[in-house]
Amino acid sequence: MNADYKRYLELVEMHMVDILPDVDSKSLTLYESMKYSLVAGGKRLRPCLVMAACEFAGGNIQTALPYACAIEYVHTYSLIHDDLPCMDDDDYRRGRLTNHKVYGEDMATLAGDGLLTTAFEAMTKDMFLHFDNEKELKKRIRAMYDIAKGAGCSGMLAGQVADVENEGKPGSPEMLDYIHINKTAAMIIAALRAGAHIGGADDKVLADLTSYGEDLGLAFQIVDDILDIVGDAKELGKETGMDEKRGKLTYPSIYGLDASYKRVDELTEHALSVMAPYYDNAEFFNDLVQELASRTK
Amino acid sequence: MNADYKRYLELVEMHMVDILPDVDSKSLTLYESMKYSLVAGGKRLRPCLVMAACEFAGGNIQTALPYACAIEYVHTYSLIHDDLPCMDDDDYRRGRLTNHKVYGEDMATLAGDGLLTTAFEAMTKDMFLHFDNEKELKKRIRAMYDIAKGAGCSGMLAGQVADVENEGKPGSPEMLDYIHINKTAAMIIAALRAGAHIGGADDKVLADLTSYGEDLGLAFQIVDDILDIVGDAKELGKETGMDEKRGKLTYPSIYGLDASYKRVDELTEHALSVMAPYYDNAEFFNDLVQELASRTK
Repeated sequence: MNADYKRYLELVEMHMVDILPDVDSKSLTLYESMKYSLVAGGKRLRPCLVMAACEFAGGNIQTALPYACAIEYVHTYSLIHDDLPCMDDDDYRRGRLTNHKVYGEDMATLAGDGLLTTAFEAMTKDMFLHFDNEKELKKRIRAMYDIAKGAGCSGMLAGQVADVENEGKPGSPEMLDYIHINKTAAMIIAALRAGAHIGGADDKVLADLTSYGEDLGLAFQIVDDILDIVGDAKELGKETGMDEKRGKLTYPSIYGLDASYKRVDELTEHALSVMAPYYDNAEFFNDLVQELASRTK
Repeated sequence: MNADYKRYLELVEMHMVDILPDVDSKSLTLYESMKYSLVAGGKRLRPCLVMAACEFAGGNIQTALPYACAIEYVHTYSLIHDDLPCMDDDDYRRGRLTNHKVYGEDMATLAGDGLLTTAFEAMTKDMFLHFDNEKELKKRIRAMYDIAKGAGCSGMLAGQVADVENEGKPGSPEMLDYIHINKTAAMIIAALRAGAHIGGADDKVLADLTSYGEDLGLAFQIVDDILDIVGDAKELGKETGMDEKRGKLTYPSIYGLDASYKRVDELTEHALSVMAPYYDNAEFFNDLVQELASRTK
């Protein structure tokens, strides 16, 4: 793992539960169920992207922390709801029982709702800390808007719906792109843009990070699809072969495995070329997309 | 119905779907399921409170519309998730099939998620319209914060969790208060405070509206509990007697019906006394709480 990634990850882990609301003994179960899924680990890709983009744009990563955590809250809510029996009906996630298997479906639904709401509550709360600095305030509004849009009905949720509705149907390349761009890439792009805003990025940096994020997001989803076929269940912490079982529309299901590997390589090359003008400053981003591609090898 | 209420309601109804994201043919079902529950009517109490509080504070109600609609989106999401089989398992709401009975549980879960996210997306988007007016921007941040907090884990969701966890248990008056204040009053207070912020209320007006909102919210919930016992199912658009069937902790279940009527009267009196110093300017608020109390008579 890249040294910067480690540094971001450490900070993110240390502050992940900071934005959880105060505990009240009467709603302790809500708090615990939210925390259960939050501390379940994972790569923390999205929050680390927020931190990296902030630093890349010249900002202080400490100031990006609330947004980094908020985006992981949004991501975690989407996983909890996605695992519900009425959705993907998964029993395990990252090697642990899914939220509803531990807390019940009612509490898992509310835990997801709580994480999503808390994300916005925390971002808005952070704005009050910068209430007397108009410039800083505007950066945060921009960051929150990108996160809301990425998570919303023209982003992640649009992808989720198309994903659910196309299960077991013969898929088109166009629909596959739509699902991948919205379900996965949208939040990765949102993370990069949010961090870039907080860091004070100019339009060029913002555009380049957006373009890099599209490549990274698509590559990330295709790698995920490949690993569901060739990966090791134990290593991945979840059952494999599930996409085929569910009749999910994936890159390998349309184009085959070979073409999938090739597409990941193409996306990696393109991502590297976008960041090339930044030389060593883009080391984090270069390492990240290359490590991702190497996971399938 | 009070003439002002009618005026607010008309505006709210006219603009309710304005903040829905652009339709995309590939995620049309998400759009339709969100809209299905949004246009289902109801009293639109919360958005009308936003409008009323804005005007009461001296603001232009047009500027409060995005926040009025956003709070109805939040309310609607909470109803959709609350109706799910894993929660209250309701088949009807306002005389129509509940969202999941029409679109399935998966889509209903996503529709709720979509409404919640869209509410925040729309409020943030509105901020861009006031980007060059720091004073207006800050009003909107304050409004959004109150809405997020009211809907979140120290507000509505805390109440939902306590409500779910206390089904069938012998309840305490303390727990009943906790559930009512959080589950119902929190969002009513949030609506009033959000509108007051947008309207530019001073601290005194904000405090009085908050106090009024607490009375109104508690009275509203107790009236709801009473009507579940003595009300007419057809008129209410939902089955009655459900609280007892589910072993819900309600005001009548702890104190009996007579004490419940009395408590509504006390809350009404207190609400009227809070608004008394405003004389005719508070007509909307006075009419509202009196009409509410009269529903049980």
